[in-house]
Amino acid sequence: MALASHHIEALGAILGPQGLLTAADEMAPYESGARYDRGRAAFVARPRTTAAVSEVVAYCTGNAIALVPQSGNTGLVGGSTPDESGEQGILSLDRLRATFDLDMDNRSLRVDAGFRLSEINARLEPHGLFFPVDLGADPMAGGMAATNTGGARFLRFGDVRRNTLGLKLVLSDEAGTVIECGSGLRKDNTGPDWKQLFIGTGGAFGIVTECTFSLERLPRQIATAFLVPRDGAAVAVLLAEMEERAGAYLSAFEGMSGVAIRHALAHAPSLRNPFPGGDVPGYVILVELSRSWPRRKSEQPLDAVLEELLGDIWEQPGGPLHDAFVGAAPEMWALRHALSEGAKSAGYVVGLDLSFRRGRVMRFRDEMAAVLAAEFPEVEICDFGHVGDGGVHFNLVMPRDPDGGVDLDLAARLRSRVTDVAVERYGGSFSAEHGLGRRNQHIYDRLTPAKFRHMATSFKLATSPAATGAVRL
Amino acid sequence: MALASHHIEALGAILGPQGLLTAADEMAPYESGARYDRGRAAFVARPRTTAAVSEVVAYCTGNAIALVPQSGNTGLVGGSTPDESGEQGILSLDRLRATFDLDMDNRSLRVDAGFRLSEINARLEPHGLFFPVDLGADPMAGGMAATNTGGARFLRFGDVRRNTLGLKLVLSDEAGTVIECGSGLRKDNTGPDWKQLFIGTGGAFGIVTECTFSLERLPRQIATAFLVPRDGAAVAVLLAEMEERAGAYLSAFEGMSGVAIRHALAHAPSLRNPFPGGDVPGYVILVELSRSWPRRKSEQPLDAVLEELLGDIWEQPGGPLHDAFVGAAPEMWALRHALSEGAKSAGYVVGLDLSFRRGRVMRFRDEMAAVLAAEFPEVEICDFGHVGDGGVHFNLVMPRDPDGGVDLDLAARLRSRVTDVAVERYGGSFSAEHGLGRRNQHIYDRLTPAKFRHMATSFKLATSPAATGAVRL
Repeated sequence: MALASHHIEALGAILGPQGLLTAADEMAPYESGARYDRGRAAFVARPRTTAAVSEVVAYCTGNAIALVPQSGNTGLVGGSTPDESGEQGILSLDRLRATFDLDMDNRSLRVDAGFRLSEINARLEPHGLFFPVDLGADPMAGGMAATNTGGARFLRFGDVRRNTLGLKLVLSDEAGTVIECGSGLRKDNTGPDWKQLFIGTGGAFGIVTECTFSLERLPRQIATAFLVPRDGAAVAVLLAEMEERAGAYLSAFEGMSGVAIRHALAHAPSLRNPFPGGDVPGYVILVELSRSWPRRKSEQPLDAVLEELLGDIWEQPGGPLHDAFVGAAPEMWALRHALSEGAKSAGYVVGLDLSFRRGRVMRFRDEMAAVLAAEFPEVEICDFGHVGDGGVHFNLVMPRDPDGGVDLDLAARLRSRVTDVAVERYGGSFSAEHGLGRRNQHIYDRLTPAKFRHMATSFKLATSPAATGAVRL
Repeated sequence: MALASHHIEALGAILGPQGLLTAADEMAPYESGARYDRGRAAFVARPRTTAAVSEVVAYCTGNAIALVPQSGNTGLVGGSTPDESGEQGILSLDRLRATFDLDMDNRSLRVDAGFRLSEINARLEPHGLFFPVDLGADPMAGGMAATNTGGARFLRFGDVRRNTLGLKLVLSDEAGTVIECGSGLRKDNTGPDWKQLFIGTGGAFGIVTECTFSLERLPRQIATAFLVPRDGAAVAVLLAEMEERAGAYLSAFEGMSGVAIRHALAHAPSLRNPFPGGDVPGYVILVELSRSWPRRKSEQPLDAVLEELLGDIWEQPGGPLHDAFVGAAPEMWALRHALSEGAKSAGYVVGLDLSFRRGRVMRFRDEMAAVLAAEFPEVEICDFGHVGDGGVHFNLVMPRDPDGGVDLDLAARLRSRVTDVAVERYGGSFSAEHGLGRRNQHIYDRLTPAKFRHMATSFKLATSPAATGAVRL
C-alpha cells in the first residue's frame, strides 16, 4: 500500500534531492537485512542532519506514518528492516556524515551516525588510534550504539557501551525532540546517565544521530597462539592462567570447536590446516597478546613472552594445557574469521548468540551435546565465540532437504529448546551481542519480567511514545 | 517530632533486636555525614536481609514515613543523611552482610550492600584479586554503586559503573518490590540495561541491597614518578606521551598543584619534601605504571622501564617534560593522599569536584586563577586530582576569621561563580565522582534541562514513586 502522494511530497520537501527514495530498485538494498530478514518499505528517508531527522520524525509522528530507523543494516536479528506490510518508512542514517571531530587530548571522537566502523578506523589510523570494537561486520556508528555491539576484543576493551562518552538523539515524539546525553566527559555524576538506556535498545527510546566515542591506541605488537585445552573444564583454568600471567596484554581468548574448524578448512581451501598431521583437536582457543607501543630494544619480543608463559603453564603437573602452537596472527585470525561461512556451507544454521558466566560456557556446551544427540540427532553443534567474556555463538547446523529446503518447524523447536536451557537453567543471555529485533522479539516478550516491561513502557512514553521501529520494548 | 509509638513497635517487630535504633546516642553516628552534613533522624532501621529492607520500605510507604537510605555514610555531598526535621528515618544497610559469593572463573563477586571496600579487598587479597576502585574513603558496596565512585585508578580500571555486572534493588513503592538487574553476565543485550539507571542516582530510583562486581588482578609490580611539566599546556602532551609509551601499564596520572603540596608538607611533618633543595614546583604529576604479575626473569624491572620511557620523552626537543623523579611508590602516594588534609589545615575549603574533557583541565585552571585573583583575591587555589581522566578536585581555600568563623555567603558566591564557568564555558561536570546530595541538589535543579527532569520524574514513578531520600531527581 503506497503512501498518499501528499505525504511523499511533504517528505520530499523536507529531505531535498536524493533524500527520499520510493522506486523499488532504489529501496531494495534497505529492505533486506544481512542475514534473515526481508520486508517492504513505503519509502526510504535519508536526512543529512540531525535537524532533518527531527523534521522527518515530527512529520511522520503527526501523520501516523510508521518509521523504522536503520544505519548500516548489518545486524543479524532483524532490528533495522521494515515488516512485510509495505506501510513502514525506513529512516536511513546513511547520509548523516558531516561531523568527524577528533579530540586528540581527550582521546575521543564525535562522529555522525552514518560513518562505517571501517571508515572511522581508516581515518583514525594516521593518528595511531582506533575504536576498539572489533567485529566481523562493518556497521555504522549509530547502529553500533543502538545495538551495543561486542566482538572479539571485548575481553580487553569492552563493548560499545564502555567506549561511549555521549550520544545525540532524536526522540519519536510530536516535536522530534533532539537531546544530547553526555558530551565527551569521562566522569560525570550529575544525574542519571541517560545515554545508557539508548545504548543497546535499537532505537526504541530514541534515534542515535551522533556518537562521542572513547578511542584506544592501535596495537603495535601482536602475538597469537592456538591452545588445545586438556578438556572442557580446562578452558576456564586456561583463561585464569592467561589473565594471571599476561594481565592487560591479553586481548583475545576465542573458543573454536573442532567441528567449526573442519567446516571452515573444507569451505576455504586457501586456509592451511595448522595442526600436526592435519588432526583437528576437539576444541581450540585462539589467544592473542598485544601491546600498544612499538617494541623497545630492552623488551623481549611478544611472541617470546607468549612462548615463555605458555611454557610455564605447560610445566604445571596436571595443568590445563594439552598442546599449544604459537604462530602468525594473520593466519590464525583468518581461520577464526572463516568459521561463520564454514558453518553456513555445511547446512542450514540456527545461530544462537548466547552468553554465560565464564565458568559455565563449557558445562552448557557439554550438556547440550548430550541433549541434542538424544532429541535432535540430525543436528550438528558448530560453535565458536568469545569464551573469554562468556560469549558463545552456539550455531546448530541442520541438514537441508535434497531440494535445498529446510524444516523450519524443527528449526524453531530447536531454537526454543536450546534458548530455554541457556536462560532458565544456566542463567545465560539469549542475545549476548546481537541485540533485539524481529527475530528474537518473541523471546523478549516471553522471558522479560512484567516489572521490567512496565519500566520500558513508562520510559518509552517519556521519550519516544510514537516509536514504531523493529524493536518493541 | 518523634514517630508515633505504634510505628516504632511495628518497625521493631519487622527488624528484631538491635534492628531499630531510637536512642539519641545510638542514632548520632548515622545522623552526620563525612564532611558537611548533619541532620536529625526519627529512627535508624537496620535490616539484615533484602526481604527485611522490602518489609521496612513497604511499611514506611504505606504509612507515609520518609526514609533516607544510607550505607557507609562516607559521601561528601550529603547524599545519605536526614534533614533537620527529625521526621525522616534512616534506612541503614550496614547489617546487610550475609552474601559474599566469589566466582573465580567469572572473576566476579556477589556481595551484600553492607560490606566496606576495605573488607572486600582484604577478603579478595588471598585470591590475588581486588575491586579496582581506589578511593580516599572506605565506603560500603551499596553506596559505591549508588554514588558511582571513581578514584585514583579510574584511568586504568574505570568507575563503579564499568565494574558492575548486576544489582539487586528494593523499590520504594507500596510493596517494597525487589528486582534483580543483571546477574554476573559480561554481555547481555536482551533489553534495556536497567542497572545503569540505579548506578550513580543515590537511591532515588531504588535502594541497592546487593552488587555483583567484576574484579581485577592485584598489581604485582609498581613504579611511580613525579613529573614536572614544562607548563600547563604540557600536561595533556605528557599524558598522551605516557599513554603512547606505557599503554595499559599506565594506572595513574594524578595532578598536584604546588600550593596543595606545600600545605601537605607543612601539615604532615612526617612527609619528606622530595624536590631538590625543597623547591616545590608549580605543578607536579604523580604517574604510576603497574603490572598484575610478578616480574619474570626475562623482564626489565618496571622502574627501569619507567626511567627509560621518561628518558625518551625528556630527549624530545621542546618536549613537555621539565623534570622527573622516579621514586618509591608508598612515599609518593603518601604525599598524594595527604593533600586533602593539607588543604583543610590551611583554611576553610570550598571543595569542587569538577571534570572536563582532558585537554581543558589546565586551561580552566589558568582562567580561574586570573578570575579569582581579580574577584576573590583572598582565596587560594589548592587543587589536585585525576587529570588523566579529566577530573580535578578544585579546592578553594578561604581564610577563617580570627574567631574561626567563615563568611558562608562569600563561600556560596565563590562556589556558584566557579561552577558556572566550569559547566557553561568549559562544558564540565559539577560533580565528577561525588554524585548528588543535599549539598548540590540546587545545582542539579538549576542546570538540568526540563526534558531530563521529566524523564527522571517518569522513571521515578515507574520504579520508586514513594522515594523520599536525600537525592531528589
